[in-house]
Amino acid sequence: MRFFKLTIAYDGTNFAGWQFQPHQRTIQATLEAVLKTICGHDIPATASGRTDSGVHALAQVVGFASPTRHTPRVLLQALNAELPDDISVLSVEEAPEGFHAIRDAVGKRYRYVINDSRVPEIFRRKYIWQIFRRLDDEAMHRAAQALRGTHDFSSFESAGAERTSSVRTICDIEVRRLPPPRDMEIHIEIEADGFLYNMVRAIVGTLVRVGKGRAAETWPAEVLAARERRVAGETSPAMGLVLLRVDY
Amino acid sequence: MRFFKLTIAYDGTNFAGWQFQPHQRTIQATLEAVLKTICGHDIPATASGRTDSGVHALAQVVGFASPTRHTPRVLLQALNAELPDDISVLSVEEAPEGFHAIRDAVGKRYRYVINDSRVPEIFRRKYIWQIFRRLDDEAMHRAAQALRGTHDFSSFESAGAERTSSVRTICDIEVRRLPPPRDMEIHIEIEADGFLYNMVRAIVGTLVRVGKGRAAETWPAEVLAARERRVAGETSPAMGLVLLRVDY
Repeated sequence: MRFFKLTIAYDGTNFAGWQFQPHQRTIQATLEAVLKTICGHDIPATASGRTDSGVHALAQVVGFASPTRHTPRVLLQALNAELPDDISVLSVEEAPEGFHAIRDAVGKRYRYVINDSRVPEIFRRKYIWQIFRRLDDEAMHRAAQALRGTHDFSSFESAGAERTSSVRTICDIEVRRLPPPRDMEIHIEIEADGFLYNMVRAIVGTLVRVGKGRAAETWPAEVLAARERRVAGETSPAMGLVLLRVDY
Repeated sequence: MRFFKLTIAYDGTNFAGWQFQPHQRTIQATLEAVLKTICGHDIPATASGRTDSGVHALAQVVGFASPTRHTPRVLLQALNAELPDDISVLSVEEAPEGFHAIRDAVGKRYRYVINDSRVPEIFRRKYIWQIFRRLDDEAMHRAAQALRGTHDFSSFESAGAERTSSVRTICDIEVRRLPPPRDMEIHIEIEADGFLYNMVRAIVGTLVRVGKGRAAETWPAEVLAARERRVAGETSPAMGLVLLRVDY
C-alpha cells in the first residue's frame, strides 16, 4: 500500500461542502469517483478538515492510500484531466506510511474576503462578502488582536459540532485593506492550530460589527470571555471564506 | 431631454452579448428593462460597441437620453439595486447634449487573458483562455509589434461585419506575463481607434501560434500583409476577452 498527499484547490460555489452526502454534489464524492476511475478500486479520501457548503480552498490537503503503480506525476495529470473545472489538483506527493490528513495537520490558515465598495464587485462576487458600506478596517484589526493566543473559543463555535475541547491557539490574525486599485477589498486572515465549527465566520461577523461602528473595539474581547455563542456577531456568508494552507 | 453617460462592468459569461436579440439574455435588454422601471418610459441604450457572447467589460460606456429628473447619484444607486449581480454600474454622469456612445468614442482598449499553467486555474476559469502549455510571451510581444500603426486589418476581421473600411490604427499592443505569484497569466492588451469584428480574438489566436513555437515571429506581419482572414490563426475563445476602457 502506498500513501499519497494531494494538494487541491476548489471553487466551493457549486458544492455542498467537502463531505460525502447522499444525492449532493460534494468535493469528496467527486474526487473519490475520479480516483476510482484512475486506480481501479474504491479509495476513501480524507481532507485535513471539512469545508462547508460554499467555502473555497486554494490549497486543501487530502490523503489517500492505494496500491496503484501510477507515479505522482501521472496521477496529477490523470486527476486534472478527469476532474470537473471547479476542482484542480495542484500537486501529488508520495507521503510517509500512515499519513493522515486530519491527525497530522499542525496548523491551518484561512482568509475571509470582504468588499466594502458601494458598487457591486461582479467578477469576484462568488468569492466575497459584499457590504455596501465602508468599514473601518484598522479598528477591526486592532479589535482582532484580543483573539490571538490560546483561548476557549466557545463564543465562536456554532452548534452541531462534536468536539471534546473548544480551546484553540490563534497564532496570527490580521485585517488589512488591499492597496489601490483593489482598496475596496479587505482580507481577514486567521492562522491557528485548529478551528471550531464556523469559527472564522463567527469571528468575521463579530469584527464587522466593529468595522461598522456598531460595537466598540474592545467588544470582541468581551465576546471571547463570555464563552457563549449567542453574544457574538452573526455568522458571515460562506462564499467569502477560503482555506489558504494546511501545515504538516 | 437630458443625456447620460453610464460606465458599466459586466461578466459576459451568462449573456448572449451586448445587443438585444429576441428570447436571449443580453446586456442591452437587461439594462433597458431596468432603465424603464426606474425612469418610467422606454429608453434605448447605446453602448460604445457591441461585445460578443461571453465577452466581459470592466468599463463599457453606454449612452441614453431621458427627461427623468433623477440625479446621477440616484440613478447610480437605483440601477445597482435593480440590476442582476453580473452587471454593475460604476458611474453615471450627465453628458453634453447629443452625446452618442458610438460616434463620440475615439479609442478603446481591450485585454485578453491567457493562463498557460499545466494546472487548471479554477477561480478565474470564466475569464481566461487556459492553454496547458508554456508560451513564449516575449516572442509573442516582439511579433505583435508589427501590428502597431495604421493598417488594413482584413486578415483579422471575421465575416459577418458590415464595415466600409478595414483600416484601423493600433496605438499600443503589449504582451506581458504577470510577475509571480501570478506568472502563469499572460495579458495581451491592444488599444486602437476602433476594432473590426473579432479583431482582438483573431490577433490573439495568431500570436498564440508564435507563442507555441508553431510559427515564426515574423509570421503575424505576413498575415497582416495578406489581407485575408483564412491565413490568420484561429479566433481565440470569447471568455478571455475584456473591454478595459473607452476613450472620448
